[in-house]
Amino acid sequence: MTEKTWAIGIDLGGTKIEIAGVDENGSIMKRVRRETDVAGGADKVQTDIITAVREIMVTSGTRPAGIGVGMAGQIDPETGTVIFSPNLDWRDVPLRKNLSDRLGLPAVVTNDVRAAAWGEWLYGAGRGYDDIVCVFVGTGIGGGIVSRGDMLEGCTNTAGEIGHLTIDLNGPACHCPNHGCFEALAGGWAIARDARDAVADDPAAGRAILALADGDAGNITAKIVAEAAHAGDPLASKIFRGVGEALVAGCTSLVNAYNPCVLILGGGVIEGMPGLVTTVDAGVHGRALGAARSRLTVVSSGLHNDAGVVGAAAFALHSLIPFKNRQQDRGKIR
Amino acid sequence: MTEKTWAIGIDLGGTKIEIAGVDENGSIMKRVRRETDVAGGADKVQTDIITAVREIMVTSGTRPAGIGVGMAGQIDPETGTVIFSPNLDWRDVPLRKNLSDRLGLPAVVTNDVRAAAWGEWLYGAGRGYDDIVCVFVGTGIGGGIVSRGDMLEGCTNTAGEIGHLTIDLNGPACHCPNHGCFEALAGGWAIARDARDAVADDPAAGRAILALADGDAGNITAKIVAEAAHAGDPLASKIFRGVGEALVAGCTSLVNAYNPCVLILGGGVIEGMPGLVTTVDAGVHGRALGAARSRLTVVSSGLHNDAGVVGAAAFALHSLIPFKNRQQDRGKIR
Repeated sequence: MTEKTWAIGIDLGGTKIEIAGVDENGSIMKRVRRETDVAGGADKVQTDIITAVREIMVTSGTRPAGIGVGMAGQIDPETGTVIFSPNLDWRDVPLRKNLSDRLGLPAVVTNDVRAAAWGEWLYGAGRGYDDIVCVFVGTGIGGGIVSRGDMLEGCTNTAGEIGHLTIDLNGPACHCPNHGCFEALAGGWAIARDARDAVADDPAAGRAILALADGDAGNITAKIVAEAAHAGDPLASKIFRGVGEALVAGCTSLVNAYNPCVLILGGGVIEGMPGLVTTVDAGVHGRALGAARSRLTVVSSGLHNDAGVVGAAAFALHSLIPFKNRQQDRGKIR
Repeated sequence: MTEKTWAIGIDLGGTKIEIAGVDENGSIMKRVRRETDVAGGADKVQTDIITAVREIMVTSGTRPAGIGVGMAGQIDPETGTVIFSPNLDWRDVPLRKNLSDRLGLPAVVTNDVRAAAWGEWLYGAGRGYDDIVCVFVGTGIGGGIVSRGDMLEGCTNTAGEIGHLTIDLNGPACHCPNHGCFEALAGGWAIARDARDAVADDPAAGRAILALADGDAGNITAKIVAEAAHAGDPLASKIFRGVGEALVAGCTSLVNAYNPCVLILGGGVIEGMPGLVTTVDAGVHGRALGAARSRLTVVSSGLHNDAGVVGAAAFALHSLIPFKNRQQDRGKIR
């Protein structure tokens, strides 16, 4: 029984699927990447996943402890059924049951952000800590909260929807029913919106951004705005100063509300503009309550783009293997 | 061994001290109230407490399981020492040790808001639930968060400082280093500030409020503004509409962040203006994420002014008696 314990992690996105064998130390043993055949429907995507999982199992020669999936969408925490995933256009797909039945392995399904938080907690920048807050700034903003060594789930498994903290009472409409949400000011879609608005208001000032978008404001993304900012464009830099202010306001809320030891910043917007971590670090240390930040460190993601796939596997290992053993392994720090 | 299990709860404030014997069902068996002799210093206040505790113990005829204290201030969670309490002008007072040594009983000390949250959770409006958020709107705003049957403490025991969520990026300065905090828009001190500013701007419109403050704007408190609003004063009503909007914004953040089953509103401002509970209920159900509020109820405090003293005793019972037994007693609901 000295065989390595490992699990399959699956990061199921709207454009690609990452599937990896991940060992108990969070190391990726083997990785497979597939394009997501959204048009093929749920059956095709699940078959592609199963083929890839079998490929990894054959290479390994040992059976994994189980399968963990992280994906954008609303998941029934009891059944692992995908209630709704806009990216994949799935409704009521019993993903956990399907994978488990066809592969003969236990499976768990959670949302992509929660999975990434599991990864950062157990194997990334939060390793060894019992109180962490993960903030992932991508198109939207999502998070995962660990408090006293427990991933917060809440009453209906939606705890950690930190993209929808109100940070500006009078702020712009969000995609949710609220307005002035954290992600409506600092998420990728808000950055693109601000840039499009600014370009429309002042085409001369917006020339550099528009050029990177091939002259079509409809093509502007947060990534393009970041590129323009890196190239020294004043308008793009101004937009990112606003993003920095919003991130400080939101992260100050999070530090006061949750009192983490470590605040971890990840996601595409942060990866594209790593200076934001310094901005948030300085801002939060200047603005949060003294007692709430007395032992706080603000850091960037430790696993970067692998947080999702490693975290999905970590969630599987956590769910399928008695927790206490591993809790001791991690060596608690509070 | 069929004796009743009970504890002493102490709600230590800057003007009065409530001391009560509280049984395992959260019922107050005997209560003593004292004025707080702040000028007499820490020794005098502690002696007054000890005298009152002895009085309750003599009446009861049985020994309590221990003593719980809730008080405004920064408490060292390990030692129960009061690091700083502005209300009492205490610094580094080893309150837990002093009470424990002089009364020969185990003692625990926590802050007043956390204590009240214990009370609401175990014996008040949150009874039987594992996921609750308590919001106490008094001079400031404080809270307590229970998630999966655990009171959140955070890295340095300050979790739940929800009065310092940023809800208005461009909002007014707070007493803390941040600006636009929840309590800087909806706390009692903010209500008094807004009323004083409004009266100064338009003395004619402010006549009713000013009359209730004996003609001196310096006397205006949130309580006076509430009285004016109840009497139909348009300016006071307008101020409370703003408070309602800020409460909805802040509570929407809390529901999205923590996903409670029950959001409990208490504290002097809510007690004085109970219609705010309806405002928050409607607002949060209109603005929070659908999945986050699908099983949410918004209610007012179940224990009202007794939350502090009952909660301090509840915290003592929780800390001093093995948790699992009582957890089962409560009959978990999620």
